[in-house]
Amino acid sequence: MSVAGVGEFGLIDRVTSRLSYGSTVLLGPGDDAAVVAAPDARVVASTDVLVEGRHFRRDWSSADDIGRRAAAANLADVVAMGADPTALLVALCVPADAATDWVEGLADGLGAEAAEVGASVVGGDMSASPTLTIAVTALGDLGGRTPVTRGGARPGDLVALAGRTGYAAAGFTVLSRGFRTPRLLVEAYRRPEVPYPAGPQAARLGATAMIDVSDGLLADLGHVARASGVAVDLTRDAFEVPPQMRDAAQALGVDPYAWLLAGGDDHALVATFPAATALPAGWRVVGRVGEGAGVTVDGLPFDGPGGWDHFR
Amino acid sequence: MSVAGVGEFGLIDRVTSRLSYGSTVLLGPGDDAAVVAAPDARVVASTDVLVEGRHFRRDWSSADDIGRRAAAANLADVVAMGADPTALLVALCVPADAATDWVEGLADGLGAEAAEVGASVVGGDMSASPTLTIAVTALGDLGGRTPVTRGGARPGDLVALAGRTGYAAAGFTVLSRGFRTPRLLVEAYRRPEVPYPAGPQAARLGATAMIDVSDGLLADLGHVARASGVAVDLTRDAFEVPPQMRDAAQALGVDPYAWLLAGGDDHALVATFPAATALPAGWRVVGRVGEGAGVTVDGLPFDGPGGWDHFR
Repeated sequence: MSVAGVGEFGLIDRVTSRLSYGSTVLLGPGDDAAVVAAPDARVVASTDVLVEGRHFRRDWSSADDIGRRAAAANLADVVAMGADPTALLVALCVPADAATDWVEGLADGLGAEAAEVGASVVGGDMSASPTLTIAVTALGDLGGRTPVTRGGARPGDLVALAGRTGYAAAGFTVLSRGFRTPRLLVEAYRRPEVPYPAGPQAARLGATAMIDVSDGLLADLGHVARASGVAVDLTRDAFEVPPQMRDAAQALGVDPYAWLLAGGDDHALVATFPAATALPAGWRVVGRVGEGAGVTVDGLPFDGPGGWDHFR
Repeated sequence: MSVAGVGEFGLIDRVTSRLSYGSTVLLGPGDDAAVVAAPDARVVASTDVLVEGRHFRRDWSSADDIGRRAAAANLADVVAMGADPTALLVALCVPADAATDWVEGLADGLGAEAAEVGASVVGGDMSASPTLTIAVTALGDLGGRTPVTRGGARPGDLVALAGRTGYAAAGFTVLSRGFRTPRLLVEAYRRPEVPYPAGPQAARLGATAMIDVSDGLLADLGHVARASGVAVDLTRDAFEVPPQMRDAAQALGVDPYAWLLAGGDDHALVATFPAATALPAGWRVVGRVGEGAGVTVDGLPFDGPGGWDHFR
């Protein structure tokens, strides 16, 4: 059955009937707007959009995978402020001949990823469009914590990383060259494993700045360096090339450090902490904040590709 | 200059530099997420998406008009819950050859419409896409009021309307037939005049149900009737055909009541109130809630077109 066959309201019914709602949802889908608990009296909000052919391909990822990635990209932004995600809203534009099964799979992926952090899909909108497009807004609650911006890093701070980098970029390269393995890398591209609890944890530990790694570690630390008016130096030895990544890099003729340092979309969290901070498991020190500007690796500019621009 | 020429971050800088931020904005664009005041400890949230060719045409409306309409559609959803809008987030997908001027105009329209209700554009995302698409999420604060859903109408309640209906639909028909006048109707299509303050006002007056008229009065009251388990009967004589609409209807061979009763996109507010409610200026009684199901006009089914489905 196509989405045109069931119509807008039929499709909305099919999708909302698959969703479940956590305790933060005071009023779910089906009215003019949802009502979500915001006990902190401040709400954290972020929007990301995924466009078919640019951010995902239906022949590379299942509907469920794409839903999980769309949710993860937004939930990561919320935890990168130190907040707990509470809700997602989804604007979905699909070709009229798309299968309702595909849309239901997407909703399942969005809902499942949100549920991992106790959040729920509370609303949205759908339209036919020639271009499959998924815009997600995530809301979160700070629980009394100070939001961790990009602008608070100070010279002398540690730079620490939670989660993986380079896996999704390696998986993307593998798929781009027409391969389907190594499975570890391809799955990392399809379904990022975001270290969600590390975000609020970093805020509690006194992180001075934090960002989720969506454009690549160098580019995203560049945002932190610029916003904080500092320099960041990464330690190359802090990054181990995992065996499957090393093998894939060799087979494809790629420098694996280009994946590790410049690959985006794993949604790791990178944060700066006062030097005396005792970092718990899950965080590892990968560099240091200094005076100056820009991001270096072992004191030198990185000579690989550095970032990502969605218009180029 | 095209958006591809200035790049994603250049375009974001150009847009955010044009925006201003009200007192509800604790942290605006430029970080992983925005932080918005939610003094009520509940946040109202709604998402709507506009797709070029389906919801707007660049040759019919200026960028500023389209921005205003995109904002209005979402702000109307928030006030229809009885809440005060606080913030907008915008996911914008534009062809790479679009002019930066156009995007700046859109941002101006979004910001100006938000400012009318004391809200601000606090964040968003941009991507290139073959299909110009604008997804907007609006947030709002209930200020201690009970959210007014679609589900609370009771037999005996008054049905009252704030704002205009049929103007935008008439303007759309005029433009569809290749005309540019009457100006009143065309401008109503381009730039809806939403009775924003009437939403929170209705909540304070004890409205039992409320909805913004985006699909047409009959269709939207159909949502209220279904959610409330009641019937709604409209009084045809409560709707006056304004002179320009009468003339346009005559010239184009259209029943003006099809515009008034089934035309969407003016974002009027329609609400039900206990029969004894003294309605202030701006609200007029247009019907009555009864036992049963469905929406009638003077006791009979309306024999014109009834609604709108975005996949058909």
